[in-house]
Amino acid sequence: DFLHALSEVKTAFGASTKDLEVSRPNGFVDCGDRQRLIYESVMFLVERVKAKGRGGPPVTCLLHGPSGSGKTALAATIGIDSEFPYVKIVSAETLNGPHESQRCAHITKVFEDAYKSPLSIVILDNIERLLHYTEIGPRFSNETTHTLLKFLGKTPPERSKLLVLGTTSELTFLKSVGLRKAFSVAYSVPLLRTEDAKKVLEQLSVFSDDDIDEAAQALNDIPIKQLYTVIGMAAERGGRFKDSVTEKLNITHFLDCLEEVTAYV
Amino acid sequence: DFLHALSEVKTAFGASTKDLEVSRPNGFVDCGDRQRLIYESVMFLVERVKAKGRGGPPVTCLLHGPSGSGKTALAATIGIDSEFPYVKIVSAETLNGPHESQRCAHITKVFEDAYKSPLSIVILDNIERLLHYTEIGPRFSNETTHTLLKFLGKTPPERSKLLVLGTTSELTFLKSVGLRKAFSVAYSVPLLRTEDAKKVLEQLSVFSDDDIDEAAQALNDIPIKQLYTVIGMAAERGGRFKDSVTEKLNITHFLDCLEEVTAYV
Amino acid sequence: DFLHALSEVKTAFGASTKDLEVSRPNGFVDCGDRQRLIYESVMFLVERVKAKGRGGPPVTCLLHGPSGSGKTALAATIGIDSEFPYVKIVSAETLNGPHESQRCAHITKVFEDAYKSPLSIVILDNIERLLHYTEIGPRFSNETTHTLLKFLGKTPPERSKLLVLGTTSELTFLKSVGLRKAFSVAYSVPLLRTEDAKKVLEQLSVFSDDDIDEAAQALNDIPIKQLYTVIGMAAERGGRFKDSVTEKLNITHFLDCLEEVTAYV
Amino acid sequence: DFLHALSEVKTAFGASTKDLEVSRPNGFVDCGDRQRLIYESVMFLVERVKAKGRGGPPVTCLLHGPSGSGKTALAATIGIDSEFPYVKIVSAETLNGPHESQRCAHITKVFEDAYKSPLSIVILDNIERLLHYTEIGPRFSNETTHTLLKFLGKTPPERSKLLVLGTTSELTFLKSVGLRKAFSVAYSVPLLRTEDAKKVLEQLSVFSDDDIDEAAQALNDIPIKQLYTVIGMAAERGGRFKDSVTEKLNITHFLDCLEEVTAYV
Amino acid sequence: DFLHALSEVKTAFGASTKDLEVSRPNGFVDCGDRQRLIYESVMFLVERVKAKGRGGPPVTCLLHGPSGSGKTALAATIGIDSEFPYVKIVSAETLNGPHESQRCAHITKVFEDAYKSPLSIVILDNIERLLHYTEIGPRFSNETTHTLLKFLGKTPPERSKLLVLGTTSELTFLKSVGLRKAFSVAYSVPLLRTEDAKKVLEQLSVFSDDDIDEAAQALNDIPIKQLYTVIGMAAERGGRFKDSVTEKLNITHFLDCLEEVTAYV
Amino acid sequence: DFLHALSEVKTAFGASTKDLEVSRPNGFVDCGDRQRLIYESVMFLVERVKAKGRGGPPVTCLLHGPSGSGKTALAATIGIDSEFPYVKIVSAETLNGPHESQRCAHITKVFEDAYKSPLSIVILDNIERLLHYTEIGPRFSNETTHTLLKFLGKTPPERSKLLVLGTTSELTFLKSVGLRKAFSVAYSVPLLRTEDAKKVLEQLSVFSDDDIDEAAQALNDIPIKQLYTVIGMAAERGGRFKDSVTEKLNITHFLDCLEEVTAYV
Ligand SMILES: Nc1ncnc2c1ncn2[C@@H]1O[C@H](COP(=O)(O)OP(=O)(O)OP(=O)(O)O)[C@@H](O)[C@H]1O
Ligand SMILES: Nc1ncnc2c1ncn2[C@@H]1O[C@H](COP(=O)(O)OP(=O)(O)OP(=O)(O)O)[C@@H](O)[C@H]1O
Ligand SMILES: Nc1ncnc2c1ncn2[C@@H]1O[C@H](COP(=O)(O)OP(=O)(O)OP(=O)(O)O)[C@@H](O)[C@H]1O
Ligand SMILES: Nc1ncnc2c1ncn2[C@@H]1O[C@H](COP(=O)(O)OP(=O)(O)OP(=O)(O)O)[C@@H](O)[C@H]1O
Ligand SMILES: Nc1ncnc2c1ncn2[C@@H]1O[C@H](COP(=O)(O)OP(=O)(O)OP(=O)(O)O)[C@@H](O)[C@H]1O
Ligand SMILES: Nc1ncnc2c1ncn2[C@@H]1O[C@H](COP(=O)(O)OP(=O)(O)OP(=O)(O)O)[C@@H](O)[C@H]1O
Ligand SMILES: [Mg+2]
Ligand SMILES: [Mg+2]
Ligand SMILES: [Mg+2]
Ligand SMILES: [Mg+2]
Ligand SMILES: [Mg+2]
Ligand SMILES: [Mg+2]
Repeated sequence: DFLHALSEVKTAFGASTKDLEVSRPNGFVDCGDRQRLIYESVMFLVERVKAKGRGGPPVTCLLHGPSGSGKTALAATIGIDSEFPYVKIVSAETLNGPHESQRCAHITKVFEDAYKSPLSIVILDNIERLLHYTEIGPRFSNETTHTLLKFLGKTPPERSKLLVLGTTSELTFLKSVGLRKAFSVAYSVPLLRTEDAKKVLEQLSVFSDDDIDEAAQALNDIPIKQLYTVIGMAAERGGRFKDSVTEKLNITHFLDCLEEVTAYV
Repeated sequence: DFLHALSEVKTAFGASTKDLEVSRPNGFVDCGDRQRLIYESVMFLVERVKAKGRGGPPVTCLLHGPSGSGKTALAATIGIDSEFPYVKIVSAETLNGPHESQRCAHITKVFEDAYKSPLSIVILDNIERLLHYTEIGPRFSNETTHTLLKFLGKTPPERSKLLVLGTTSELTFLKSVGLRKAFSVAYSVPLLRTEDAKKVLEQLSVFSDDDIDEAAQALNDIPIKQLYTVIGMAAERGGRFKDSVTEKLNITHFLDCLEEVTAYV
Repeated sequence: DFLHALSEVKTAFGASTKDLEVSRPNGFVDCGDRQRLIYESVMFLVERVKAKGRGGPPVTCLLHGPSGSGKTALAATIGIDSEFPYVKIVSAETLNGPHESQRCAHITKVFEDAYKSPLSIVILDNIERLLHYTEIGPRFSNETTHTLLKFLGKTPPERSKLLVLGTTSELTFLKSVGLRKAFSVAYSVPLLRTEDAKKVLEQLSVFSDDDIDEAAQALNDIPIKQLYTVIGMAAERGGRFKDSVTEKLNITHFLDCLEEVTAYV
Repeated sequence: DFLHALSEVKTAFGASTKDLEVSRPNGFVDCGDRQRLIYESVMFLVERVKAKGRGGPPVTCLLHGPSGSGKTALAATIGIDSEFPYVKIVSAETLNGPHESQRCAHITKVFEDAYKSPLSIVILDNIERLLHYTEIGPRFSNETTHTLLKFLGKTPPERSKLLVLGTTSELTFLKSVGLRKAFSVAYSVPLLRTEDAKKVLEQLSVFSDDDIDEAAQALNDIPIKQLYTVIGMAAERGGRFKDSVTEKLNITHFLDCLEEVTAYV
Repeated sequence: DFLHALSEVKTAFGASTKDLEVSRPNGFVDCGDRQRLIYESVMFLVERVKAKGRGGPPVTCLLHGPSGSGKTALAATIGIDSEFPYVKIVSAETLNGPHESQRCAHITKVFEDAYKSPLSIVILDNIERLLHYTEIGPRFSNETTHTLLKFLGKTPPERSKLLVLGTTSELTFLKSVGLRKAFSVAYSVPLLRTEDAKKVLEQLSVFSDDDIDEAAQALNDIPIKQLYTVIGMAAERGGRFKDSVTEKLNITHFLDCLEEVTAYV
Repeated sequence: DFLHALSEVKTAFGASTKDLEVSRPNGFVDCGDRQRLIYESVMFLVERVKAKGRGGPPVTCLLHGPSGSGKTALAATIGIDSEFPYVKIVSAETLNGPHESQRCAHITKVFEDAYKSPLSIVILDNIERLLHYTEIGPRFSNETTHTLLKFLGKTPPERSKLLVLGTTSELTFLKSVGLRKAFSVAYSVPLLRTEDAKKVLEQLSVFSDDDIDEAAQALNDIPIKQLYTVIGMAAERGGRFKDSVTEKLNITHFLDCLEEVTAYV
């Protein structure tokens, strides 16, 4: 089934897969129906790449949504599950050199390497960060923007088939620089609703059956990233979880930490 | 007739023609009366270039319209059908080097090569992209803008006759930088209306006679590029089309994919 | 008479005159009373330069008006008719090098050459283009602006007398950068009114006597440049004019082409 | 107890600790309940870092609040009290070189050194100053902003655990450049209320019992930095405190100096 | 008397005076009471420089007023009449090199040369042009602005006494960059009123007694520069003045030219 | 008494003091009670520097007020009267090199020299000018701003005690770049009121007893700088003061000059 498929470790791809695993250090949990539908739609695109005839620009898909909603983990998981021989993630954390020409050269290299493989996935993670976008100004690298536009529109060489997955939490910005329409499809990765959050808490087994509903009730429209932070803080505050992950969280600590984390945002 | 003329492969022009064929990897289909009228008007300009006396600036024509409406495919087809000895497309995908001085040098080279041929067409594809235009700011290369203005206004040497075809989906921007009025004529390439979309679906034979009307009905004012994307996705989702293109699309899959593609734009 | 004087070919000035002839490849036609008055006023300035005592800045005159109204052709004709030993046109098409320091050096050279001649005319054609002006921003070269201001205000050396003719279709911009008031006089070159257009059509003999009034009637406030474009297109569309320029235009083709050319501007 | 714990001198850490002591030259005083709660919450994070499993980005925490409210002293104290082998403060005063690339290189070095230690704290002090932020414009270094974002999001190498403490008095600016949400938790360091100020004055023994209430009453919502300034000025004005810190302040001098310091801000 | 004093040629100062004479190629005419009062006030400053004790910044005076009102001619005349051993004019026409660092170096040189003379006048002509000021943007050289501010505020060496005369037609701009208040006094050089214009026409003897009143009547609030232009054009148009300057102007030609010159400004 | 103390020449400090004397070439006069209070408050800070314990940032004080109100003279006098071994003034007139990196290097040198002395004063004169601030834009050097912020916040080395005195006539600008709050105290140096002006006129003995009240009456809210200018001009206009400063001013000339100087500001 779906979750089982996701949790299978793909070991065949060496270093590349390792880079992807960094994005989901604790494995992959089911975040509810809406995320699963997106996973399936993108996996259809993976199949379409394989089936695609020659010619034309790469297949392209954008995952957007609030900060911390799980976009990178989802893209990395699809990269792993594709079993394509070339899967590469380009992120602000891995881009070397602060100058835009260095970033453009890095991106160019990644696509040119992809062109050498019959089947490839390039993940452009947090595109606004790749562009050094800052809201005030706004400031961003126009040169890098046009480098991305170029490779999203460029027909790969004959024997190479390519899927480009982008992620962003700044969809409006991407629209304004023309990058949104450079992707054929776009999916909105949602926050966790109460029922999704409960599902995640169950999979992580951090609450006793008595507390789980009260905890989930406090968690509407939360990014999964924040949920992990709150769990980590509450675990520490209770003085537990140090030696063993089997103990449960104190619901009061949990709610206190939740408040601290969501205040002043 | 028109369609026949269009689908004829011109093989005499070698590498140049190959660059143009990339813009219409699946051949050229009839997109309805409005596009055909534009094709004919521009072909008259091709004739006028041949008939033109010496002196004066090049004949110039701009194709503008929504993203994905088929402007590049149309310009490329005219380039092929002209049978001119020199037909060159300048696009963001083929421009080397991210620096504006490199782009200007490339453009200068293309025009200077054109001046060596008695009859030439230069296609300036997606002019806003050649200028590295981005809506916010706005940002664009003023140097490249003035390089284009220079060659659009410059009288070619005595024995050389030149047609410049531009395409853009940012007509307002081109007006604001003075490039619109540097073209003598401009045609607006339209989206597919329901009747045009039906004509395209018939030519591609992707629907059974039962479904084609329902499919076309859902397709008003769609760019042909998006129509191709939807067809590709629906084919994959149905699990068909992999081995053979003769099977038909499932209308429900088609409508689902259409919704996914047109959402969140 | 006036027209006769204008059409006389001045052959004595070699290369310089050739550069000027490029601006009016089909000779010079009478565009009506208003343009003729401007021609005469500027020819008086030509005389004044000759009569001028020593000292003081150059005589300066600006021709402004809508795009394509015939400013460059008029300035070039005056340059030819002056019979001055040094007549030089500086235009965006002839300026070498995209960098502003190169453009400034070129302009400096032209003026320093002029200072070596007892009588000279420097035509600064399309000044906004020389400054790489673009409406959005606005962007323009401040360095080039001040180079022009310098030479418009600088007293030539003792034995040299100089007339500077400027042309522009962006008078408001020139005012805003202080270049308008650097010229002593300015004349507004008008569009063709119906009666002017009729006069031009008569001189070109492109219509039969039956059609000429209907054609002229459709042509109010048109730039002469656009009129030439429409005639060229209509000639091609009718399949005529190819071998012989004596045949007449079809009035329907003419009106169709007029509509195409004036649409979407 | 709390105060005792704070005032203990940690001598084991050599040079690093010395850098931190500079931020609280007169030791650490108790500033009231609200600051103490923040101290405790951040010390829990220190514990969490130790307990944290492998993988994932660093633990991050931002201290924000009005200028002079004691943020740097608090962060430095936590750094000292953590007893981590690597505690490094990055501040505008210690950053070498005025060019942004130098600042980025310095920051990169600090994080790369931290990665070599099993447990580390990096204090990014006055982040807006590290970015050379100035309100008008606004101006700031986008390159440095993205260098910080990179290291706040980057997973440290396997055996290294890292806490990043930031301080700022420009929370709105940090939000607008996306740095606020790069920190998991944020605490607001408050000004001294009357009761807090009284507690500070008591600890410093600068007033006689007769005056302390009148002094505290005048001190609502004052930054501790300003309180130290006023005390220093009043001491001088009274001609006392020169040889001995045991004498008391004159309340009138104190109130005069308070007025001078708080005027014209 | 006044006029006589003005028209006396000062020959003792060699090259410097020649540079100044360029600004008034046809000598100096009396422009009416208001200009004369300014002349006298500034000549008092010349005397004050001589009488001034040691120390303190230079004596400074700004002449502002509409373009062409005679500011440069007035400043040059004062420079000549001062009989100071060092009188230097810095103008956009004499500044070498388009780059601001070159302009700053030139200005620095002029002041350092002045410091070597016991008595000097530096004329900063058309200060806005020295700063490459352009209204749109606005653009100007901040570096040159601060170079001027520096020398206007800097105390010359002991044995050197200095008067700085500035001219500008952009007083508002000078205020906004802080240059207005760097001058101790400022005088507004006026346009010619009808009675002033009549006085000028009389001195130039260009009209018969019958016409002079009609001519003067048409000339209210005119810059003297424009009056010279109109006289020159009218002279040419009448076909007179070529061989001899004793003939009179035709009043109709004069009024026509006046209209042409003042139109479209 | 106060004035006597001020007028005493401090000769022990060599070159440094000479630099300071330039700011008050005619000695120091009493400008009324309000300025005297400021003098005294800052002299208390001088004492505080001496008495200060080790550690913590430098003592800092800002003098702000209208242009020409006497801020620099006041700061220089305090520098002289402090008898500190290192007193250095940094002003736009003494900063070498127009480039901001040169200005930053100069400022850095001055502070590093100060750190070598046990007691030092650094006067940052006209801070907005040090930053090359210009109101339009606004333009200023962000790099220099942050260099000043760095040294205002940096703890001097152990054995060095430092007072930083700033002056500015652009307090609003200093606030907006965060420099105001980098100073602990700020005093507003006032214009001369009628009674202050009278006191100054008495000290300078430029009026007879009959005229002094009428003169003072005309002088409300005047900067002392302007008062000196008016006196100088009036002296010249009366033809007096040339050989001897003992004669008195003519009240009419004085009032005329006052009007000329205060007009058109
Ligand atoms: N489905 C999942 N299973 C397990 N962990 C997940 C899942 N989704 C997200 N996470 C974890 O939650 C955290 C946030 O997820 P992720 O970084 O993918 O979010 P994001 O939307 O890319 O955030 P950002 O906008 O900051 O880039 C990560 O630590 C990630 O490992
Ligand atoms: N008449 C046509 N026949 C066949 N294919 C076409 C036709 N017109 C467009 N296409 C195909 O549709 C897609 C979009 O067309 P094209 O790139 O020409 O559009 P465009 O208007 O240039 O888009 P953009 O604004 O993105 O540049 C291409 O894959 C192209 O091959
Ligand atoms: N009087 C004329 N006789 C013959 N041809 C003319 C005349 N005036 C203009 N033309 C022709 O019309 C066209 C446009 O004229 P021209 O380039 O001089 O206009 P313009 O006002 O300078 O336009 P732009 O604003 O684009 O510079 C040119 O091809 C020119 O040769
Ligand atoms: N709890 C404390 N105990 C003793 N001294 C303190 C304490 N808090 C602050 N101080 C002192 O008060 C002054 C201001 O504190 P600090 O620099 O930490 O404030 P800040 O909020 O970081 O200010 P800024 O916004 O200017 O960076 C410093 O001299 C510091 O030593
Ligand atoms: N008093 C005068 N006597 C003779 N000629 C004069 C006099 N004043 C001005 N002129 C002449 O009038 C013309 C314009 O004067 P000038 O250049 O001094 O004006 P301006 O105010 O400096 O103008 P701008 O603002 O353009 O610099 C010059 O040719 C100058 O020689
Ligand atoms: N108290 C004083 N005694 C004698 N002269 C003074 C006194 N105050 C100011 N002056 C003189 O008045 C003039 C202006 O003073 P100063 O330069 O100090 O003013 P400022 O406020 O620094 O002006 P700015 O804003 O232009 O820097 C100087 O020439 C100075 O010598
Ligand atoms: Mg992500
Ligand atoms: Mg296209
Ligand atoms: Mg032209
Ligand atoms: Mg701090
Ligand atoms: Mg002038
Ligand atoms: Mg000062």
